[in-house]
Amino acid sequence: MVTQDRALRVRTLLDGVRAEGRAALTAPEGKVIADAYGIAVPGEELARDADEAVACAARFGGPVVMKIVSPDILHKTDAGGVVVGVEGAGDVRAAFHKIVENAREYDHQARIEGIQVQELLPQGQEVIVGAVTDPTFGKVVAFGLGGVLVEVLRDVTFRLAPVDADEALSMLDSIRSAQILRGVRGARPVDRRAIADQILRVSELVADFPEIAEVDLNPVIVTAEGAVAADIRVILAERAPTERRTHTREEILSSMRRLMRPSSIAVIGASNEQGKIGNSVLRNLIDGGFPGEIHPVNPKADDILGRKAYPSVTDIPGEVDVAVFAVPAPSVAPLLEEVGRKNIPNAVLIPSGFAESGEPELQDEIVAIGERLGIRLLGPNIYGYYSTWHHVCATFCTPYDVKGGVALTSQSGGIGMAVLGFARTTKTGVSAIVGLGNKADLDEDDLLTWFGEDPHTQCIAMHLEDLKDGRAFVEAARATVPKKPVVVLKAGRTAAGAKAAGSHTGALAGDDAVYDDILKQAGVIRAPGLNEMLEYARALPVLPTPQGDNVVIITGAGGSGVLLSDAVTDNGLSLMEIPPDLDTSFRRFIPPFGSAGNPVDITGGEPPSTYEATIRLGLADPRVHALVLGYWHTIVTPPLVFAELTARVVAEFRERGIEKPVVASLAGDVEVEEACQYLYERGVVAYPYTTEKPVAVLGAKYRWARAAGLLGGGFMT
Amino acid sequence: MVTQDRALRVRTLLDGVRAEGRAALTAPEGKVIADAYGIAVPGEELARDADEAVACAARFGGPVVMKIVSPDILHKTDAGGVVVGVEGAGDVRAAFHKIVENAREYDHQARIEGIQVQELLPQGQEVIVGAVTDPTFGKVVAFGLGGVLVEVLRDVTFRLAPVDADEALSMLDSIRSAQILRGVRGARPVDRRAIADQILRVSELVADFPEIAEVDLNPVIVTAEGAVAADIRVILAERAPTERRTHTREEILSSMRRLMRPSSIAVIGASNEQGKIGNSVLRNLIDGGFPGEIHPVNPKADDILGRKAYPSVTDIPGEVDVAVFAVPAPSVAPLLEEVGRKNIPNAVLIPSGFAESGEPELQDEIVAIGERLGIRLLGPNIYGYYSTWHHVCATFCTPYDVKGGVALTSQSGGIGMAVLGFARTTKTGVSAIVGLGNKADLDEDDLLTWFGEDPHTQCIAMHLEDLKDGRAFVEAARATVPKKPVVVLKAGRTAAGAKAAGSHTGALAGDDAVYDDILKQAGVIRAPGLNEMLEYARALPVLPTPQGDNVVIITGAGGSGVLLSDAVTDNGLSLMEIPPDLDTSFRRFIPPFGSAGNPVDITGGEPPSTYEATIRLGLADPRVHALVLGYWHTIVTPPLVFAELTARVVAEFRERGIEKPVVASLAGDVEVEEACQYLYERGVVAYPYTTEKPVAVLGAKYRWARAAGLLGGGFMT
Repeated sequence: MVTQDRALRVRTLLDGVRAEGRAALTAPEGKVIADAYGIAVPGEELARDADEAVACAARFGGPVVMKIVSPDILHKTDAGGVVVGVEGAGDVRAAFHKIVENAREYDHQARIEGIQVQELLPQGQEVIVGAVTDPTFGKVVAFGLGGVLVEVLRDVTFRLAPVDADEALSMLDSIRSAQILRGVRGARPVDRRAIADQILRVSELVADFPEIAEVDLNPVIVTAEGAVAADIRVILAERAPTERRTHTREEILSSMRRLMRPSSIAVIGASNEQGKIGNSVLRNLIDGGFPGEIHPVNPKADDILGRKAYPSVTDIPGEVDVAVFAVPAPSVAPLLEEVGRKNIPNAVLIPSGFAESGEPELQDEIVAIGERLGIRLLGPNIYGYYSTWHHVCATFCTPYDVKGGVALTSQSGGIGMAVLGFARTTKTGVSAIVGLGNKADLDEDDLLTWFGEDPHTQCIAMHLEDLKDGRAFVEAARATVPKKPVVVLKAGRTAAGAKAAGSHTGALAGDDAVYDDILKQAGVIRAPGLNEMLEYARALPVLPTPQGDNVVIITGAGGSGVLLSDAVTDNGLSLMEIPPDLDTSFRRFIPPFGSAGNPVDITGGEPPSTYEATIRLGLADPRVHALVLGYWHTIVTPPLVFAELTARVVAEFRERGIEKPVVASLAGDVEVEEACQYLYERGVVAYPYTTEKPVAVLGAKYRWARAAGLLGGGFMT
Repeated sequence: MVTQDRALRVRTLLDGVRAEGRAALTAPEGKVIADAYGIAVPGEELARDADEAVACAARFGGPVVMKIVSPDILHKTDAGGVVVGVEGAGDVRAAFHKIVENAREYDHQARIEGIQVQELLPQGQEVIVGAVTDPTFGKVVAFGLGGVLVEVLRDVTFRLAPVDADEALSMLDSIRSAQILRGVRGARPVDRRAIADQILRVSELVADFPEIAEVDLNPVIVTAEGAVAADIRVILAERAPTERRTHTREEILSSMRRLMRPSSIAVIGASNEQGKIGNSVLRNLIDGGFPGEIHPVNPKADDILGRKAYPSVTDIPGEVDVAVFAVPAPSVAPLLEEVGRKNIPNAVLIPSGFAESGEPELQDEIVAIGERLGIRLLGPNIYGYYSTWHHVCATFCTPYDVKGGVALTSQSGGIGMAVLGFARTTKTGVSAIVGLGNKADLDEDDLLTWFGEDPHTQCIAMHLEDLKDGRAFVEAARATVPKKPVVVLKAGRTAAGAKAAGSHTGALAGDDAVYDDILKQAGVIRAPGLNEMLEYARALPVLPTPQGDNVVIITGAGGSGVLLSDAVTDNGLSLMEIPPDLDTSFRRFIPPFGSAGNPVDITGGEPPSTYEATIRLGLADPRVHALVLGYWHTIVTPPLVFAELTARVVAEFRERGIEKPVVASLAGDVEVEEACQYLYERGVVAYPYTTEKPVAVLGAKYRWARAAGLLGGGFMT
């Protein structure tokens, strides 16, 4: 059992280091670990005579460095005690004698213990392989090019540990300077397997020994023949990470189902007084048309907004699914005990006044009560939540009832309000809007687990400032992404943003580079900003999934064609090389000076029939997978005529079972705004006055399709 | 006269190369040029005996490389004919004898001409210095780090040649890996002056000899002590660039004044028939309220839209400033002759059917007529132009009359229509909208020259796909930027976009990296996309100019604060470090759990008075230079209450002479849209549902302020 043996060797070593009260391992200790895990480091042996030196060198098999070992000689080079690049028995023997002779000449009393024979590191590309313990994601492996230039440019990539062989290999292509490893200017490509192997072994090491906080192979010298770590550095963690309470998938789904599809809701702190949160919440539940039971709870009233009020939740007859709290923070804990006694599985904690306000103990107390009594907590410090398909508006904001496919969540209340306003003005179809606030208990991974199953939800968009448990999130995202897109707006991307996040939630800001790589690895679409998150959320459920990479631009405005082409490249999409037969077909419909190719430039003065004919061609040809339309407002083809014909043709093909994503940029006078709304409502994602947005949204759809494995690309790397 | 002498030497050399029909110079020829221009290259001499070798080495002053020179010895190293790193008379002498001895041993019949003694290149950082001839900008110098990694990452910067010493130095900081040159990981900083000196000398060389198409010093080895070009490569141009016809500033202003402030306009091809362009143009001129004379020209009508029609422009009584053409392309040339006879200085050529439609000869013909008769041409292939303050709507689009400070131009008609629609829906105040189309004559530099002087214009925004004369544009931009911001949307940024641009205008696509650096150098604000160009154009005239770098975020939504901080960093702005006294002042108004520092997080439940008090603090404190507001929709402070108080406080300070840019992000339900419009109209640039846009716009204002030298930063580098 080699594996057991290596674990034992490293265990013994680490226990020894711990016993000495050290956290950093010495170089020889590092070498023991490297040998145990098969991490290639330069061979190194002490030769006591020339025969031993020759034998050592023969074992290493290449040129060696030979160095005098003497406690009396500090400056080996001055003593002529170092020879570099010796190869072959004769030369090794000669070098041995020469070094000893030099040393004796230098100091004839020096005690000579022998000659250290080291493998000579080859000339090669320097890379870095390592592992760190991220506060959000735990063990993370890192890979980058070495050297001072890369240090400045921070060209490094991260993955959750443990990685498998494919993931390790994928890291080599995830750095900006990946091309270097494939060989440039006639250089031979390096041994990629050997690097991946180093990554794998480091990943295994930190997985086996979670107490190892950091491993650094820096530099690893890599050539066409292999990879050798010139140095290994290992640092132990100060203390073991605390275990986080987890719930099974079934537990999560069971309580979430009752939260999002409740039959009976209690409002604790319901009030008749206008302007009070307990009044708004109750009114919104009623006005939102919740068809189940709504029970106001308030010991000081018999009747609130025409409903019988109960002094305590324990007085409510029958089962209750959700208790919404609209009471001041200090009252939450005792009332939560009553919720537990009533066996209500969900508490929605609207009040602020907990960790975010410098009262972490108050928050710890309610968390403890929730865990003890089996109540899941949403919040505290939230606006509440909406579950539109079930007519739940359990929030102090105004009701929202445009049912649709996107579930939106936000950590911050302000962002939640922006979500609501944007959704309302754009008529975004929503399945749920959920405030997460302090995330004392329920967080993004619980919600992902639920929305992944919820048949009404086709896309999930989340604003977050931190993740309480990065691994649980990744696991939930990986389970969800093959089914539906997950969009994440991670606030606190920059140092300034992260500092603001720290002051806001007390959350430790993760390094954004780690977030970025690991969210990608989880298949999540990261939105660069709030507006993009909202636009992706609105568009992704509307757009069909592309079946391949070939994007075709059809434009009436050459100028839009150029900008749309820029946007296609910016978003990592591929302009299709139009095959000659299709080119000929397009040319039949466009003036001789129009430009076929891609963009297909039908020119500005064309009638509706030209738009229609060319869009039909694009939809009908199975080699075309997505259309980007550039419309130019003219008298010949007014905006609503373009919108009508486009929507009609797209609908006709949809009925014939041909669904391709179609996005449009409309350049024109204000009528194009109405045309865009018309198109959007009919499944064509259209924007006025921008060539960037329609393509960005198509790009997001493609990113998801790739992450979901629907384009043969697998998870993005 | 050293300078004259060096010019003569290089002239003689280049003539010789030309005479031999070569374009590429040999290495020794390159060395002659390097020596003439003081470009440091390794010294190199032939020593015929040991004394000469010692003398050479002494002249070079450091270690040298010594190489056998023999026509009979091809493989010098095999012959023991190369020794590297020899220093000191004794060693040089010994090496000389040893090499000769080795050579004789290797081939006792070899003819030995001597030993080449070369300066040994020091170990140092590799950089690249060069010059190229850009199709748009002409001579351009380039600087980047050398080595394979940089080649992959394309970390290079460009400047128009000739550069001065400061510009040359600034290039060292314009690469992403600039830090390397300043010394990292304990390395000594390199000799920056020496690199700048190499750049300067290359710049002088290509300025003196425009026939040199390309110079490449690659690599230049740079250390703390100096910079030596290991290799110099010089390539001559195939042919000299053609001279472009230019106009003096006075000529441009004189014709532009009559174009933009005309007293009398003729419409050639005016028509009574609805749907015809000649009908739309005439109607728009009339409906737009042009107070001057409008003369329809059409030989087939006596009266058009109630105005007397003339058979020819030559029949119109009195002076005419502008002739708008609404006739088919083939009719333009003869009618242009008549315009010339009438001494009309401006022809606005709406028709398409010229170069863009595969008819370059037709375009050449009208250009020749224009030059011959002194008519400036706008277009052809345009929608026309608007000059709002003078009630000119000479276009087939609908009239636009919201007067204001931004002049917008577009190369493409479709983009022009988007400009119009956006302006109308956002009520953007406009001074002019101008279509440039094929730019057969008038182009961006003419317009810049005019708008720079136009008192109504406070900001210029231009969409362009190419520049006919990059140097003229840079010159005009440099003259304009100190007075008002210039925003450019350069389409065809990416390879795909440039290809589309090629098909659209037949213009040769410039390398975007060159465009990007040189536009920056000219102080131009480059918009990444169409929507950004439009938003910058709308906002820049509204925002006052910041007086310093200190940006403060005041937010009611902590979540917005985090996103706004991200945006501040993304846009290269500086979050002010709040001084303790100001921090104390802020804290007086915010709850104890709110966070002072920056962002100032006043927390969500605060009344209007808290917003007002903290905004007042920010405006009153002279150390604060710009405010970014994050508003969170609550019952306590509804959107319009926030908008009213903010606008009122800003106006009050403005009256007291305190003008600072204030931008706002409003998170909330749909009422925030009206609040944003209210704020925008009162000089506070406000957006709903986005934290990115307000900060991007503030960033654009800062970029301009720096470029205009108003923040002490000078032109950006």
